[in-house]
Amino acid sequence: MKNAKLADIRPVLLVNRQKSNMRGGESLVLENIELEKAQDIILDHARVMPAGSLPLLQALGRIVAEDIAAEHDMPPCAQAAMDGYAVAEGGDGVYKVIERLRPGEISAVSLSANQAVGVVTGGPLPGGVVAVLPEEAVELKGDFITYRKSIEPGSNIKPPGENFLKGDLLVRKGTCLSAGIASVLASYGIDEVIVYRKPRVAILSLGADIVSHREIPMTGQMRDSNGVLLAGLVMQEQGEVIDVRVAGVDNITQIGELFEKLLERADILITIGGAAYGVCDQAFPLIEQSGADILFWGIQIKPGSHSGAAAIGEKLVISLPGSPLACAVSFNLLAVPVLRAMQGLAPHQVRLSAICTNAFGKKGGPRRFVLANAACAHAGWNVKILPGQKSSMTRAFLSDWNAIIDLPAGHPPVEKGDAVSVILLKPAYF
Amino acid sequence: MKNAKLADIRPVLLVNRQKSNMRGGESLVLENIELEKAQDIILDHARVMPAGSLPLLQALGRIVAEDIAAEHDMPPCAQAAMDGYAVAEGGDGVYKVIERLRPGEISAVSLSANQAVGVVTGGPLPGGVVAVLPEEAVELKGDFITYRKSIEPGSNIKPPGENFLKGDLLVRKGTCLSAGIASVLASYGIDEVIVYRKPRVAILSLGADIVSHREIPMTGQMRDSNGVLLAGLVMQEQGEVIDVRVAGVDNITQIGELFEKLLERADILITIGGAAYGVCDQAFPLIEQSGADILFWGIQIKPGSHSGAAAIGEKLVISLPGSPLACAVSFNLLAVPVLRAMQGLAPHQVRLSAICTNAFGKKGGPRRFVLANAACAHAGWNVKILPGQKSSMTRAFLSDWNAIIDLPAGHPPVEKGDAVSVILLKPAYF
Repeated sequence: MKNAKLADIRPVLLVNRQKSNMRGGESLVLENIELEKAQDIILDHARVMPAGSLPLLQALGRIVAEDIAAEHDMPPCAQAAMDGYAVAEGGDGVYKVIERLRPGEISAVSLSANQAVGVVTGGPLPGGVVAVLPEEAVELKGDFITYRKSIEPGSNIKPPGENFLKGDLLVRKGTCLSAGIASVLASYGIDEVIVYRKPRVAILSLGADIVSHREIPMTGQMRDSNGVLLAGLVMQEQGEVIDVRVAGVDNITQIGELFEKLLERADILITIGGAAYGVCDQAFPLIEQSGADILFWGIQIKPGSHSGAAAIGEKLVISLPGSPLACAVSFNLLAVPVLRAMQGLAPHQVRLSAICTNAFGKKGGPRRFVLANAACAHAGWNVKILPGQKSSMTRAFLSDWNAIIDLPAGHPPVEKGDAVSVILLKPAYF
Repeated sequence: MKNAKLADIRPVLLVNRQKSNMRGGESLVLENIELEKAQDIILDHARVMPAGSLPLLQALGRIVAEDIAAEHDMPPCAQAAMDGYAVAEGGDGVYKVIERLRPGEISAVSLSANQAVGVVTGGPLPGGVVAVLPEEAVELKGDFITYRKSIEPGSNIKPPGENFLKGDLLVRKGTCLSAGIASVLASYGIDEVIVYRKPRVAILSLGADIVSHREIPMTGQMRDSNGVLLAGLVMQEQGEVIDVRVAGVDNITQIGELFEKLLERADILITIGGAAYGVCDQAFPLIEQSGADILFWGIQIKPGSHSGAAAIGEKLVISLPGSPLACAVSFNLLAVPVLRAMQGLAPHQVRLSAICTNAFGKKGGPRRFVLANAACAHAGWNVKILPGQKSSMTRAFLSDWNAIIDLPAGHPPVEKGDAVSVILLKPAYF
């Protein structure tokens, strides 16, 4: 991975260029920029979703939008830590059981020496208690118990606040509500949590040769698989998919109407395909005619170079290429950080160094991203490049990739055993 | 971790024991058994859920219940791999462009030498084609293109079946439907997939001192946090939570009716609390009076020893202890494998060796399970024991544990740097 040449990379251009006749007019467009610059620009336009209250069980897995602190000590008062007998100080080893508390019962007595009260785990203690003797540690005869060992004051007593003290932070804003945290909130009687709304995402596949996967394509046409791919990936990132559409053979006016209608309901509209500069490429003119502010068009990566983004009001349009592999890569690189940021999470994905367990023959060209499976091995992270990664191929999709390898521009072929830079998209097993 | 003493472990008993007066009568119950035996017994009674068809996008994340193979080659016929020009064999470097195909269009012509047809990526090719010249590699003047280099036959042509051959297995029964697999199925026009139904789980908290987390407890009572905990964990394992109830101060007849009603709708009924042998413990008599076949009662672990299971018809009852930590541990050890098996997944969780990054002072006693966070480090797996693991404490729940450390009976204290056996419950980051 040494001696990477910066070949085949066009410089960042901020051009006042004569646009093709399809686009009409002139304007300033930031073209063919670096990935990190594209990510920064798009994140600058990603607003955090409004927050709202949800019942606890419905809020599981969502990102909490408030700090929640303990309202009181937990337990609120001293409790028995075991089933057994509460005894007072100064007994001689034999105690008369004056009361037996059952779950939910409280005692009105205060213990004197040589008196005991039967208590249950988690139950409140009578006054004057010095320790709880475990049920199995005492000898019981009629109404008397015998315990001959010395008693350590406080043993088997949970002091108030042992679990949480008043004011302890139970959940911090920006945390995913886990089952464990939810159960702690439940113990405080909290049944509503304020969480960020899921970003609403509409998906629109462009291209006169594309039909819905529910239709039968004619020769020269193909079914849209990218819409399903992105819908699944959006859901995986906790976005709400509000519609998956194919524009197909509609004319630009009809597509424009569909575009507007989808954008009205969505926080993010993702278009797929037609993102290059060919005369048939509809994404740029479509976005331009909508009045959106084009943030950038084209990034210096492969696959996925034909990606762009635009902002219109508080909404984002992300334009991804139609080749399935390019679509997957640029979704992971551009849309995922945005989806995370909009839910109040840190946008950045985990980056780590891993040892490649197989070889990859391609070399040179722009900065390249390769779908892979990362796993933890004896010597740290390994990563395996998935086979079949030509940009139109979907064979790699049959393995559920959890990582993307980031190879610098002009890289040599990857040898087995090379250390590579990896973006970890999902956690890994082994 | 050497010299583990098998202290404090009662032997496996298959007793013909005189039951307490609450239980009445006599029967054979397999008591206080080894964890692995308990898991085997309960898995023997876990039936795989019936399978049914779901629309593709709704089936995401579910376990596919059928093998699906490619019905035809993909692509079905040769296609252009790039935007460019299809040319015939034997040209002299200058070709007349006789046609320009747009997306979705097909050609009726067959190419002669020195003829070219403009093609788009993924488009079908005209007859007589030998290669596709990339658009950016040719010089275009009027209706003629010039390409002076030698042409490699087949270059930039995707042969039929390059992606998938007819008969290739696209998804294997028992696989989780990922976005990637779904997109491949979509490309074949498959919009319905047969998946296993989610196991329906009802949760019932027992104990006269327990009130719903939506209620205000009186002195001596506490809110049910276990119900929310288990609901969240069941959802995490892709189970469907159909009800979360608290029996509270109801009498045994009322609780029995609630038990029957929940069991009617559920595949698994999980009871929480009252699983010991005390006179107030309701789980055993409740299950017995329902006519269920008690599979075992009590396992040789800590926390979580007071766990049991029963079968009634095709349904399972799992009885977990009420101490939150014990409840979490025994849910992970007993219920999770069952939930996985019922969805057609391999039941067994990942087990690995990890280096403990902190110390743990407890020692001795039965085989002990400790909630922990596992992560992949430079030298393989690390694991950190979560603080605050007394069985009634929930402080550890604020960290989202992904692992349980399995310490043998009679173990010494764990030192930082010790290798421990870990059950990985969820994948890990770093």
